[in-house]
Amino acid sequence: MTIKDRKTIRKYKAMDVDKNLIHSLLATASRAATMGNMQLYSVVETRSQAIKEVLAPLHFNQPMVMGAPVVLTFIADFNRFTRWCELSDADAGYDNFLSFSNAMTDAMLFCQNFCTLAEEAGLGTCFLGTTVYNPQGIIDVLKLPRLTFPVATITVGYPDENPEQPDRLDISDIIHEETYRVVSDEDIRRAYAYKESLQENKHFVEINKKQNLAQVFTDCRYTRRDNEAMSRGMLDALKKQGFLK
Amino acid sequence: MTIKDRKTIRKYKAMDVDKNLIHSLLATASRAATMGNMQLYSVVETRSQAIKEVLAPLHFNQPMVMGAPVVLTFIADFNRFTRWCELSDADAGYDNFLSFSNAMTDAMLFCQNFCTLAEEAGLGTCFLGTTVYNPQGIIDVLKLPRLTFPVATITVGYPDENPEQPDRLDISDIIHEETYRVVSDEDIRRAYAYKESLQENKHFVEINKKQNLAQVFTDCRYTRRDNEAMSRGMLDALKKQGFLK
Repeated sequence: MTIKDRKTIRKYKAMDVDKNLIHSLLATASRAATMGNMQLYSVVETRSQAIKEVLAPLHFNQPMVMGAPVVLTFIADFNRFTRWCELSDADAGYDNFLSFSNAMTDAMLFCQNFCTLAEEAGLGTCFLGTTVYNPQGIIDVLKLPRLTFPVATITVGYPDENPEQPDRLDISDIIHEETYRVVSDEDIRRAYAYKESLQENKHFVEINKKQNLAQVFTDCRYTRRDNEAMSRGMLDALKKQGFLK
Repeated sequence: MTIKDRKTIRKYKAMDVDKNLIHSLLATASRAATMGNMQLYSVVETRSQAIKEVLAPLHFNQPMVMGAPVVLTFIADFNRFTRWCELSDADAGYDNFLSFSNAMTDAMLFCQNFCTLAEEAGLGTCFLGTTVYNPQGIIDVLKLPRLTFPVATITVGYPDENPEQPDRLDISDIIHEETYRVVSDEDIRRAYAYKESLQENKHFVEINKKQNLAQVFTDCRYTRRDNEAMSRGMLDALKKQGFLK
């Protein structure tokens, strides 16, 4: 699978994925750009059924966690670098928000490279956005030390489904020339019109008894109440891990 | 250039990069995973000399900003989606930190995909981590509205240099099996020993009159004082853009 053909794979064959293959793909992925060549990330590779069972509810029981042979949790990691500094009598000033942002960035570039390489190697992946919904739970289960934070989870396995590629916005609605342009209401309506016209989305509106697709997002999928509660949880966990005062 | 061969390119030929090529690479890059298919990102494409001149000091006058034909600023963007919700009588609850994190994640995956595709197409790229050092300055120059935030800048052009690939940590120091392992001081010292042994790094220690490489990072490159000041600036800008209360 190339970047152009990429799609999320949620069902995997009951077939192991060789550990050396995963490690070799991760090694190549680490060629991604990284802040000052500090490589501010780690990855936790979970294969044990017992640990998947405690991770699964933290990911809202999405079936990919139990169904995939390999679950990779990508960690923004300033712990390793800070410990090296401490062992070198160097004053490591990385217990702050900018440093978290830098480590999260490093981890995401590494993670996306891994996904591209895994797909080129015939594997399927699913990105679990739920990683930051209850980070403290994941921190506890994976025993993440200070100055580390889970930012992405990828389930990996050989594909056992071949879904259609989902829609995307027209790239002209994403690109702004020179500066961010003033976008009219009409532009916004036009940008999302195709998405609203899809049969699948019309069905979601109907079964959720909503007036339109945007309300399915705001009232059912990603609600203000959940987002605000999870924001507090994420900020609390950042404090506990030492990234925020 | 493939992911395995990737290196940062800081010098570019005085040769334009076709706009259609950039847009087509961005369209393909948008195949990256995205939270709920919301595509929470935009990209500002800067080619004008005048705007590069005001961006350059915000990137600490790194010469790539003026030297590259194209400067792309990747934006975590919940503005477009929120406006669609507002036009649909839907209560958009995305003015919070979790939503920023989701949008930053989406933007980073999209950005890394773009870099991989650009390199495959023979272009060179440089990731400017300085984007979050003075985000308010970039917000002002690029006229970024509420619920948007600049998270990455990529300079793009045809390579006019062919540097060596930099070192990377051994992947075994990045991977943790099942849970984050307790890493010994010895493990840490061993992980960074190769980096410390490089002639180039020994030279940095010498010219900066430091005892070791870690001190070059903590005392010269990424200091506590700078990180703490820039953390405050980043959090202030997040508040101003509506992502933090």
